Amino acid sequence: MNKVTLAQGGGGQAMQKLIAALFMTAFDNPLLATQEDQARIPLRWLNDAGDRLAFSTDSYVIDPLVFPGGDIGKLAVCGTANDIAVGGATPRWLSCGFILEEGLEIATLQAVVRSMADTAREAGIAIVTGDTKVVPRGAADKLFINTAGIGVIPAGLEWGAAQLQPGDRLLVTGTLGDHGATILNLRERLGLEGELASDCALLSPLIAAVRDLTGIRAMRDATRGGVNAVVHEFAAASGYGIVLNEQALPLKPAVRGVCELLGLDALNFANEGKLVIGVAPQQAQALLGRLQAHPLGRDAAIIGEVVPQRGVRMTGLYGICRTIDLPHTEPLPRIC
Amino acid sequence: MNKVTLAQGGGGQAMQKLIAALFMTAFDNPLLATQEDQARIPLRWLNDAGDRLAFSTDSYVIDPLVFPGGDIGKLAVCGTANDIAVGGATPRWLSCGFILEEGLEIATLQAVVRSMADTAREAGIAIVTGDTKVVPRGAADKLFINTAGIGVIPAGLEWGAAQLQPGDRLLVTGTLGDHGATILNLRERLGLEGELASDCALLSPLIAAVRDLTGIRAMRDATRGGVNAVVHEFAAASGYGIVLNEQALPLKPAVRGVCELLGLDALNFANEGKLVIGVAPQQAQALLGRLQAHPLGRDAAIIGEVVPQRGVRMTGLYGICRTIDLPHTEPLPRIC
Repeated sequence: MNKVTLAQGGGGQAMQKLIAALFMTAFDNPLLATQEDQARIPLRWLNDAGDRLAFSTDSYVIDPLVFPGGDIGKLAVCGTANDIAVGGATPRWLSCGFILEEGLEIATLQAVVRSMADTAREAGIAIVTGDTKVVPRGAADKLFINTAGIGVIPAGLEWGAAQLQPGDRLLVTGTLGDHGATILNLRERLGLEGELASDCALLSPLIAAVRDLTGIRAMRDATRGGVNAVVHEFAAASGYGIVLNEQALPLKPAVRGVCELLGLDALNFANEGKLVIGVAPQQAQALLGRLQAHPLGRDAAIIGEVVPQRGVRMTGLYGICRTIDLPHTEPLPRIC
Repeated sequence: MNKVTLAQGGGGQAMQKLIAALFMTAFDNPLLATQEDQARIPLRWLNDAGDRLAFSTDSYVIDPLVFPGGDIGKLAVCGTANDIAVGGATPRWLSCGFILEEGLEIATLQAVVRSMADTAREAGIAIVTGDTKVVPRGAADKLFINTAGIGVIPAGLEWGAAQLQPGDRLLVTGTLGDHGATILNLRERLGLEGELASDCALLSPLIAAVRDLTGIRAMRDATRGGVNAVVHEFAAASGYGIVLNEQALPLKPAVRGVCELLGLDALNFANEGKLVIGVAPQQAQALLGRLQAHPLGRDAAIIGEVVPQRGVRMTGLYGICRTIDLPHTEPLPRIC
C-alpha cells in the first residue's frame, strides 16, 4: 500500500494503523502517547514561564509541497510557532490537523511528517494532539496541514502594535521576499533555480536573543502580504504613520531580479523567516547589533520610522516621498 | 462580489476586508479584537478553573455542508469542544482556520460563520484567533474548517481509558448513529428525509451535570468509527475486554431502517452528540439517572461491561456472545 486511501481517514482499523505507524512514531512524546481525545498539559509548566497563554493557528496549503529551503511540513511548524514567538512567548506545544487527498503517495506524507517532527524537535516543540481526514480524489489538492500552537508570554512583556510611538524605528531582520520569490520562480518557471531559497525558519532563537532589550514596542513576522502588510497593520493599530527608506531595504540580487522581470515589489512578497520590529529610537542601534550578531539576523537593517502623520510612505532614491498602498492581493495564491 | 476570490486569501486589502466584515464581526470578543498574531489569555483565568490545560484539534471536511440537525460550522465548534469536554474540562477558547475554494458563494460562507458564532456564543466559547486561506477552483471542495480548542481540567479529575476496571459498566448517552445515518441518507438518496437528523450537539452541559459524580473512569464522544471505535479504544488502553449487550443499544427506528436496508451496523456509525462513559458498577444507576434527567441524555442506556478477558464481544438476542471487530473503515468518506 503506497498511496493514501479513504479508509485511512475512516475511523477504523486502517486509520488506527496509519496513526500508530506514522504520526505516533514520528511525533513521539509523553503528552501525545496518552492517546486521549485531548492533550493534558499541567498548568504549573505554563505558570513557570509567564502569565499569559499565547494561542495561534494557521493552515498551510502551499503548492508545491517541497521547495528550496523547506517544505509544507517545516512551514507548518515554523509558521505557527513564529506567530506565537512574536508575542514574546516561547512556542512549546502544537496541534496538527492533516487533510489528505485520496491517492497521495505515502512516501510524500512520510517525508512531510518527518520534516515536521525534525523541525519541532530541534525547536523544543512537542506535537501533542492531532487529527487526520482523507477526502476523495479531487476534493483537495494532495495535502493541507493546520497547526495551532501554544506558548507562554513572560510577565511584563507587552509587545503590541498599539505600543508604537512617533520616533520609533522599524527594523527588518533580513532580506525581503525570499520565500515569495522562490515560490514564484518555481510556479512561473522563471529559471532562477540555484539562486533562490525560501527563508523558512523558526524565529524563536532570534527573538530569545533580543527579548531582554528594553524599548521593543512591537514585533511581527512578515508572511503573506510581506513587510508591506505588517507596516500597514502597525500604522493602523498605532494610529500613527510609517515612513520607509527604500534604499535601506535589504534585498538579495536574485529577488531583485524577479521583481524587475515581473514588475513586482519585494515589499509585498511573502517571507517565512523575517521579523519586523518597532523599537524606541535610543535602543535601535543596540537591537540592530544584537540581530546582526545572530545567524538569523545577519542582514538586519533599520528600514523606517514611525511618524505622527497617518498612512504608509516611502522615501525613494532621490528623496521623494510617495504613499505606499496595501495591494489588493499577493502576486500568487497558495504561497503558504 | 458574491463569490470568494483568490485575493481574499492573499494577505492584502481584499483579505483584510473579508476578515473585518465577516469574521471579526461574527466572532467579536475582546481577545480577538486585539488583532495581534496570537490571542493572549491571562493564565489566572486558567488557574481559576483547574490544574491542567486540555488542548485538542479537528478538521471538518463534511459533505454536504448543511444537513438536518446542523452544518459544518456548528460541527466545527461542537466537535472540538466535545473533545475537550470529555477530558472533564470546560471548553473556553477556540482557534479557527478556514480553507476556502475560489468561487464559493459568500452567502454560504456567511451562513457557516454565523452558525459557528451562534454555537460558540450559546456555549460560552470564544473564537479568539484564526486564519483564512483561499485555494484555486478545484484545489479544495468548497470549504474546510479546522478548529483547535482549549479548556481547563479541574484538579482531581482523572478520567481516562486506562482507569477502567473489570466490572465497570459502559453507558451511552443516547441513540446510536443518528449523524452517520443522516449523512448516508443524504448522500445515497435513500429517501428517509424527515425521519433522520444529526445529533450534532455540544456535550459540555451534559458532562457538567455528571462531573461531580464519583466513579466515572473514562469518557469519549463517539464520532467517526462510532461507539465501536470507542469501545475498542477503551479495551486497548485498559488492557481488559468489553462485552456489549445488543438488546440494550438504543436505536431510532429510522436508523435501524437504514442499517437493515444497507446491511450495516449502527455500532459503526458516526455520532456527533453522544458519549460513551465507563463508570464503577455501584455508580452506574446514579449516572444513568442523571443522564436521563438531562435533555441531551434522555435515551441514555447501560450497554455493556468491562471484563477481564481482552477483546470486544457482543451478547445477541439469543444470548450468544460473538467477537466484534473494528471495521477497516467507516461506511462513508467526509462524514465529519
